[in-house]
Amino acid sequence: MPASYAYLGPEGTFTEVALRTLPEAATRELIPYVSVQSALDAVRVGEAEAAFVPIENSVEGGITTTLDELVAGTPLMIYREVLLSITFALLVRPGTKLSDVKTVTAHPAAQPQVRNWLKTHLPDAVWESAASNADGARLVQEGRYDAAFAGEFAAARYGLEPLETGIHDAENAQTRFVLVGRPARPAAPTGADKTSVVLWQRDDHPGGLRDLLGEFATRGINLMLLQSRPTGAGIGNYCFCVDAEGHISDRRMAEALMGLKRICLQVRYLGSYPRADVRPGEVRPPFPGTSDEEFVGAADWVARCQDGRF
Amino acid sequence: MPASYAYLGPEGTFTEVALRTLPEAATRELIPYVSVQSALDAVRVGEAEAAFVPIENSVEGGITTTLDELVAGTPLMIYREVLLSITFALLVRPGTKLSDVKTVTAHPAAQPQVRNWLKTHLPDAVWESAASNADGARLVQEGRYDAAFAGEFAAARYGLEPLETGIHDAENAQTRFVLVGRPARPAAPTGADKTSVVLWQRDDHPGGLRDLLGEFATRGINLMLLQSRPTGAGIGNYCFCVDAEGHISDRRMAEALMGLKRICLQVRYLGSYPRADVRPGEVRPPFPGTSDEEFVGAADWVARCQDGRF
Repeated sequence: MPASYAYLGPEGTFTEVALRTLPEAATRELIPYVSVQSALDAVRVGEAEAAFVPIENSVEGGITTTLDELVAGTPLMIYREVLLSITFALLVRPGTKLSDVKTVTAHPAAQPQVRNWLKTHLPDAVWESAASNADGARLVQEGRYDAAFAGEFAAARYGLEPLETGIHDAENAQTRFVLVGRPARPAAPTGADKTSVVLWQRDDHPGGLRDLLGEFATRGINLMLLQSRPTGAGIGNYCFCVDAEGHISDRRMAEALMGLKRICLQVRYLGSYPRADVRPGEVRPPFPGTSDEEFVGAADWVARCQDGRF
Repeated sequence: MPASYAYLGPEGTFTEVALRTLPEAATRELIPYVSVQSALDAVRVGEAEAAFVPIENSVEGGITTTLDELVAGTPLMIYREVLLSITFALLVRPGTKLSDVKTVTAHPAAQPQVRNWLKTHLPDAVWESAASNADGARLVQEGRYDAAFAGEFAAARYGLEPLETGIHDAENAQTRFVLVGRPARPAAPTGADKTSVVLWQRDDHPGGLRDLLGEFATRGINLMLLQSRPTGAGIGNYCFCVDAEGHISDRRMAEALMGLKRICLQVRYLGSYPRADVRPGEVRPPFPGTSDEEFVGAADWVARCQDGRF
């Protein structure tokens, strides 16, 4: 069996396009799964080496299905991330004119990203949800709807034509995808890395969350995502999915995670992996006093003090 | 025109049941709207006095459609909240047995709350999404599906029978609803109140969010919800919807909001309103040093010091 990557299918969606930007995807068999849950389960049971799923979107925020899967169940780890700009094409059967379009379809997640465009260009069109954008294109091919919003790349596969391209209500609309595998040693730091963890508070008191975030802030670590997710214990009970700048092998990050381990009820480490938004040379330098050298120097100094050698 | 409340329809959903628990609903005309957006727009344009919509769910977390509507556009204010325990009934046409059920339907939000029950009791049933739980019940009445998950109260309206009741995967599954109106003076404090605000950071730096939360923590104010929502400016750009214990007329809350107003790029006040989870007598006393009396006493002391009268 060749090494395989599971991904959120079907074929011809933005997820597949994003996955194919990873060099390592070229040497793997890529297998579409019907849901985020089934793709991640394929990794958990050893059916796939890794799974590739969306995790964050600049319009909708954290993708809760994915976060909830990573928060619970057998631990998994993130190894890679990919950022993909999302713009839609309006796909139609050859010959269809814009004035012919009475019904449109796409995955429900596409709707907030094309709502204004629809209001301006097709105010009377009826929207019907499809299981995926690719599935919407297939339903247009079959004549069930007049047009589908999907990636322009999906047109050829379904014998459709892009009537309009570059459709996006929000500027800079992007989706972030992650490659998730079973826990192992994280890859070495690249100089532009991100660390993901899930934090559960020990109890609920004024300043509780402020104190958790203080473990990062005290070490000069910037946060990139803080998404609360229900623990299932009723309204108001949340754990926190956090993405922080840096790698677990950075002294400042290791010390922050130790601090969190001490004060949290539970910490789940989700991995340290290269950032997709910047290259190593573009990362701002550590906040004053938080470089590895300064951590090492400070530890030496305390040791000398303990030894009476200051 | 009688005073009317818009609510997320159709009739016969959990939202209507929750709305009818409010005494003031008895004297208003209750008008169902097809979406959260349209219900809130009815308030914005003066078509309705207030709108009643879901805002938080113990399984899915903050309801992003509602939060995004409150974050953007013409400011609105929350006046009341209602907590409703959510358990589903499996509604069927009279005479249907569990073994006859091959297809089931409900609103997509119901799925994570009945998934385990389905796996155990109807592992082979095919799931199809409906526009609402009430609409699912209607489709069962019409014979399009065999069974619908909906509130037991919906059975009579659609000539159906509850085959099973009390279905819920998560214990304590609750949804929180809010009554939203145009901005006005908030109701007087009851002693058990909640204040909602939206916070935008001035810039992105280590400790930025910790400092915002510190404005609450420093005054002994507990947070009940912190939900990040994309600002639309691309991945990693978030504002924060915060629910905090207390009323804007409490000295500690007023001072915290002043602190946030000083350090945030923008603060949107969403209202102070009675908590639905506890009664006034059940609220824990203010954190030491944060009662109104202590704030007044401390202000007097500083004034005396400034005056040389300590």
